[in-house]
Amino acid sequence: MKALVYHGPGNKAWEDVPDATVQEPTDVVVKVETTTICGTDLHILQGDVAAVTDGRILGHEAVGTVTAVGDAVRGFSVGDRVLVPAITKCGRCEYCQRGMPSHCQTVGGIGWIFGHLIDGTQAEYVRVPYADTSLYAVPPEVTDEQAIFLADSLPTGYEVGVLAGNVRPGHTVAVVGAGAVGLSAVLTTGLWGASKVIAIDSNKFRLEKALEFGATDTVEVGPGTVGDVVALTDGLGVDVAIEAVGYPETLLTAASLVRPGGTIANVGVHGTPVELPMQDMWISNVTLTMGLVDTVSIPTLLKMVASGRIPAEKMGTHRFTFDRIDEAYSVFADAAANLALKVVITP
Amino acid sequence: MKALVYHGPGNKAWEDVPDATVQEPTDVVVKVETTTICGTDLHILQGDVAAVTDGRILGHEAVGTVTAVGDAVRGFSVGDRVLVPAITKCGRCEYCQRGMPSHCQTVGGIGWIFGHLIDGTQAEYVRVPYADTSLYAVPPEVTDEQAIFLADSLPTGYEVGVLAGNVRPGHTVAVVGAGAVGLSAVLTTGLWGASKVIAIDSNKFRLEKALEFGATDTVEVGPGTVGDVVALTDGLGVDVAIEAVGYPETLLTAASLVRPGGTIANVGVHGTPVELPMQDMWISNVTLTMGLVDTVSIPTLLKMVASGRIPAEKMGTHRFTFDRIDEAYSVFADAAANLALKVVITP
Amino acid sequence: MKALVYHGPGNKAWEDVPDATVQEPTDVVVKVETTTICGTDLHILQGDVAAVTDGRILGHEAVGTVTAVGDAVRGFSVGDRVLVPAITKCGRCEYCQRGMPSHCQTVGGIGWIFGHLIDGTQAEYVRVPYADTSLYAVPPEVTDEQAIFLADSLPTGYEVGVLAGNVRPGHTVAVVGAGAVGLSAVLTTGLWGASKVIAIDSNKFRLEKALEFGATDTVEVGPGTVGDVVALTDGLGVDVAIEAVGYPETLLTAASLVRPGGTIANVGVHGTPVELPMQDMWISNVTLTMGLVDTVSIPTLLKMVASGRIPAEKMGTHRFTFDRIDEAYSVFADAAANLALKVVITP
Amino acid sequence: MKALVYHGPGNKAWEDVPDATVQEPTDVVVKVETTTICGTDLHILQGDVAAVTDGRILGHEAVGTVTAVGDAVRGFSVGDRVLVPAITKCGRCEYCQRGMPSHCQTVGGIGWIFGHLIDGTQAEYVRVPYADTSLYAVPPEVTDEQAIFLADSLPTGYEVGVLAGNVRPGHTVAVVGAGAVGLSAVLTTGLWGASKVIAIDSNKFRLEKALEFGATDTVEVGPGTVGDVVALTDGLGVDVAIEAVGYPETLLTAASLVRPGGTIANVGVHGTPVELPMQDMWISNVTLTMGLVDTVSIPTLLKMVASGRIPAEKMGTHRFTFDRIDEAYSVFADAAANLALKVVITP
Repeated sequence: MKALVYHGPGNKAWEDVPDATVQEPTDVVVKVETTTICGTDLHILQGDVAAVTDGRILGHEAVGTVTAVGDAVRGFSVGDRVLVPAITKCGRCEYCQRGMPSHCQTVGGIGWIFGHLIDGTQAEYVRVPYADTSLYAVPPEVTDEQAIFLADSLPTGYEVGVLAGNVRPGHTVAVVGAGAVGLSAVLTTGLWGASKVIAIDSNKFRLEKALEFGATDTVEVGPGTVGDVVALTDGLGVDVAIEAVGYPETLLTAASLVRPGGTIANVGVHGTPVELPMQDMWISNVTLTMGLVDTVSIPTLLKMVASGRIPAEKMGTHRFTFDRIDEAYSVFADAAANLALKVVITP
Repeated sequence: MKALVYHGPGNKAWEDVPDATVQEPTDVVVKVETTTICGTDLHILQGDVAAVTDGRILGHEAVGTVTAVGDAVRGFSVGDRVLVPAITKCGRCEYCQRGMPSHCQTVGGIGWIFGHLIDGTQAEYVRVPYADTSLYAVPPEVTDEQAIFLADSLPTGYEVGVLAGNVRPGHTVAVVGAGAVGLSAVLTTGLWGASKVIAIDSNKFRLEKALEFGATDTVEVGPGTVGDVVALTDGLGVDVAIEAVGYPETLLTAASLVRPGGTIANVGVHGTPVELPMQDMWISNVTLTMGLVDTVSIPTLLKMVASGRIPAEKMGTHRFTFDRIDEAYSVFADAAANLALKVVITP
Repeated sequence: MKALVYHGPGNKAWEDVPDATVQEPTDVVVKVETTTICGTDLHILQGDVAAVTDGRILGHEAVGTVTAVGDAVRGFSVGDRVLVPAITKCGRCEYCQRGMPSHCQTVGGIGWIFGHLIDGTQAEYVRVPYADTSLYAVPPEVTDEQAIFLADSLPTGYEVGVLAGNVRPGHTVAVVGAGAVGLSAVLTTGLWGASKVIAIDSNKFRLEKALEFGATDTVEVGPGTVGDVVALTDGLGVDVAIEAVGYPETLLTAASLVRPGGTIANVGVHGTPVELPMQDMWISNVTLTMGLVDTVSIPTLLKMVASGRIPAEKMGTHRFTFDRIDEAYSVFADAAANLALKVVITP
Repeated sequence: MKALVYHGPGNKAWEDVPDATVQEPTDVVVKVETTTICGTDLHILQGDVAAVTDGRILGHEAVGTVTAVGDAVRGFSVGDRVLVPAITKCGRCEYCQRGMPSHCQTVGGIGWIFGHLIDGTQAEYVRVPYADTSLYAVPPEVTDEQAIFLADSLPTGYEVGVLAGNVRPGHTVAVVGAGAVGLSAVLTTGLWGASKVIAIDSNKFRLEKALEFGATDTVEVGPGTVGDVVALTDGLGVDVAIEAVGYPETLLTAASLVRPGGTIANVGVHGTPVELPMQDMWISNVTLTMGLVDTVSIPTLLKMVASGRIPAEKMGTHRFTFDRIDEAYSVFADAAANLALKVVITP
């Protein structure tokens, strides 16, 4: 079969590799019919993720059809259309049992293994371990192009942003950074009845998209950002500030937007320490959350997509076939300039 | 009447002042029969709290008897024995109505006003605003020496440590710093069924006290602190790490002790920024909480003291009368060396 | 002034009464500019509420303007436009402090006192006790005709139905009975992201209204009700069944619609016992909730009305002036036949 | 092998049966080293549980050693000492994923299958389906005689009583019925910091046991029960009333003990309908919960037993070997008269 293989920083190739096969009785093999690229894939290609070594097939998001099942698999059969989420869940360790497979102890202490610790989804076929507890059936009302964004970006914005941020009806919410993950938070805050959703970015295209995705207000980044947001609330700041970028300044901006008693939900992937002004913050009764997605919200999100309440398909802005995957990477690597959110890749 | 008056950094005096009187229909006046000193009072004397100006009576903790009531007061009468908590609660602003009077908008955006924005409790009498919603009746089974520690230190350890840390039955808890507030957290984690409570300090007296207060294990601070704590858990760290000191290194220690999915509850008052290793922490699904006490847990704590489940009286190690209040400050200013936890001051 | 006075079962009159005045320092007087009728008022007139005696002014919902304030009132001034909610809240008893003024111990163990234990709001003026903690300012964006439904019916549907029912994103919800309170639940489930809201009634007008208010499906009551609802879910029933009528058969219908692990939220006022099939239900892991409204959700609901997310004004179907209040009662007493939801009564 | 086989109402025999074997790759076989009898087993023998048919091996609680494992089992190996809980968990259906395997859809819609839908644990060996997600390793500090009570009775009292009842620090709790399950609730309320635990029964032996298990007060059933309990609280009743018997009168007693805003947690197995006085209860803001145990609290309970905080071994009052299992049933069938709580049965 063919797959996108990592060959050290800066190098990757769509090349022939051995076929994906069932290796454990709990495995299935899925024929990949739709995949996409995540910001993390770009980090890997920059050599930032030491655990990814030469020869690894990239990617951790897929929609496809089951082509082979292990002897112990009971929930899925050959021919089933499935969503392969970013996180693998053994289903039995303490973390899986408490709904936090992001730290599944069985698969290595971190639930993200596709395109990281095992071969990934940017391939014609992918082996999926612990299939019964990890895969999700895709309902007929949900298209592949909708489902693919539920593999990682939508649950990340929802779980690590909206749920961790503890959004409640009537809340005001600021989303710092309106890329794919920030927009995923914008798209899903409505599920919890936010009264205002304020998107903050320096890119006008993304701010326009934010309005289309459900933001009630937008603020272009500048010296007046904090003042603008505070003016949109009752002078005390927002209830929930979601950070969806991953830099010290964006986290500090989020921290400065939140009112006493509020929550800062960090979704961004950080590469450096952040100097937190604890001398001012200690008295503020705020909560700072952070983390990797669990993808356990996928059943809820699938229902909301199926019922039309979440227009997930809006996330896909560009389409490519496998043989043009290099081009897909190029477009996504400079997403803002290319007016791209997420790319859709199919055979 | 006599009171302890602040006269700028380093200066205070037990001196004659005008009598405390009812000024608003919602006020009462309380004759102070027991008071104590808080770490914050020491910060004020160092000149660290700009809002406290020359002439302010210090102190924000008292037990005493009501001697006068305003026309609108309905819940308390002259002669009632009451607890005056550190936090004043108007009862009607949005923050008070959601149970977060630490940020009561009516009294100035911060619920701590005694010995800060208005005259305090280290005095023969104290005026108490919003008495109906702020004061607590002391049940007959609870002594003054027990009740005084419920004015601030016990609810701080409980609310900002144990409750914010979301301790649940079976959890392992580490408390970094076993001073009065850290020990208050130790004393109250048992209410939520912690399976292990590990006290961490450099002072042997405090570690001994911690065992007496309900810690199951102690760790003396040193290069092996993290390893020692991890060895006491199942190798992943504690579920909840409570920081009760207020320095960057102690907060970072707390952060390094917590397992994926756990909570770091910062109780300490910080004076400088803290460089948080977000490049490592972002993926850990931990939560960092912080804040000023609300004192809304006082009814629960009073019940538990009355029923004998919380031996609050153990917190008092030294006793002074008002005329020796300078000496009380000296002892408390160097609490660890003086084998002191909290001082009890009476007429 | 003039007011609607109860004179025993079946008798009421719009007649002259002494003016409402400030009696306690925490009182205000409100000039009533909009009021309405509640199902409870009909029960009183049938003689079902023993605590209501001859001479009592009826009504417990009002929007109006403050005309006098007691000495201790700080949150409201003469001229303020306010919402007088059904529940009075002392703000200091244990129940008020835990957000459950429905059982305020200070005002008699039950927070509903207007038109019940004290004179009510179907009058030109009304005395409001504990004004600081009970009244709500009406924002300029919210009209009187929107605000009046937040005095009782909307918070009842929301708190006793949606919140007690623990609706969460993705849930399926059935509302048994689409009168004013049932429709209030329909109108507010969307705040919590319900995926399906199924309204059940025997009246076609109400089912049409339900669709207009946000229901996704309707079921006309009949022998196939349960089967129809189960067919609309995945065969297991709904996550939340809200009972908004108050008869044994409607509560049993709600109970039969709910899936294992779900919640039956009883909102209806019952007059007789209900035989619950515990021999079947004990194993079902369902929860049955019930209760009087607290009206503590009013700030959230006001925000959502102000932002346009809750079209509260749709609840008002008929308008009357005070001198035609008898006619208003007649219309409302046979609401379904008159195609009425709530009546709006103004000077 | 030998096993206790059901042969229709009133008939059972300890007889030869085919050996338990691995049938699915996710099965294990466990050699039973300790088992016990549950009240449900008595119901089965009375013919009350239609799903149990002639030839079924009884029992759903065991501690033992793994003797064979299916090909897909990864969490357990031959020789492991394990707890076989009453509930089987597939780990992948919607109910298992939300922590409610009591309604596992895969094993039949009800998680209790041992001695019910498949052969049970009152046997020399037992086949355990879905072993990886259902079994629990027993830590070395926990004895077989402690662990056996964690298979059903302790988690039932804890989950269906204490957790469903939402016990919180400071709460007053009444437990109606001090048999094995009621005492399990008594034993575990302390984990949540109850301030008073009032045990109610007509049997003096059980009331004595209740005090030994952590009750703070006891009330002997009689005409004054409700008054006695109310006198032990502040006149309003308890926060949580746990029903642990299963008759209409005991459920109504529990309902009459609870204060406004409290919870009635029904643990008892009912055989008839219960006429609930909804005409009085609708206004009380109480919650009624009920259900089958999930056994998901076993990891927490194992930790608390290991740390000495729950003396589970106190539940075992009588000991028998397999060949005397008839005698064990006789003693347990008249437990109160025999001063028995739970019987321990070993090879």
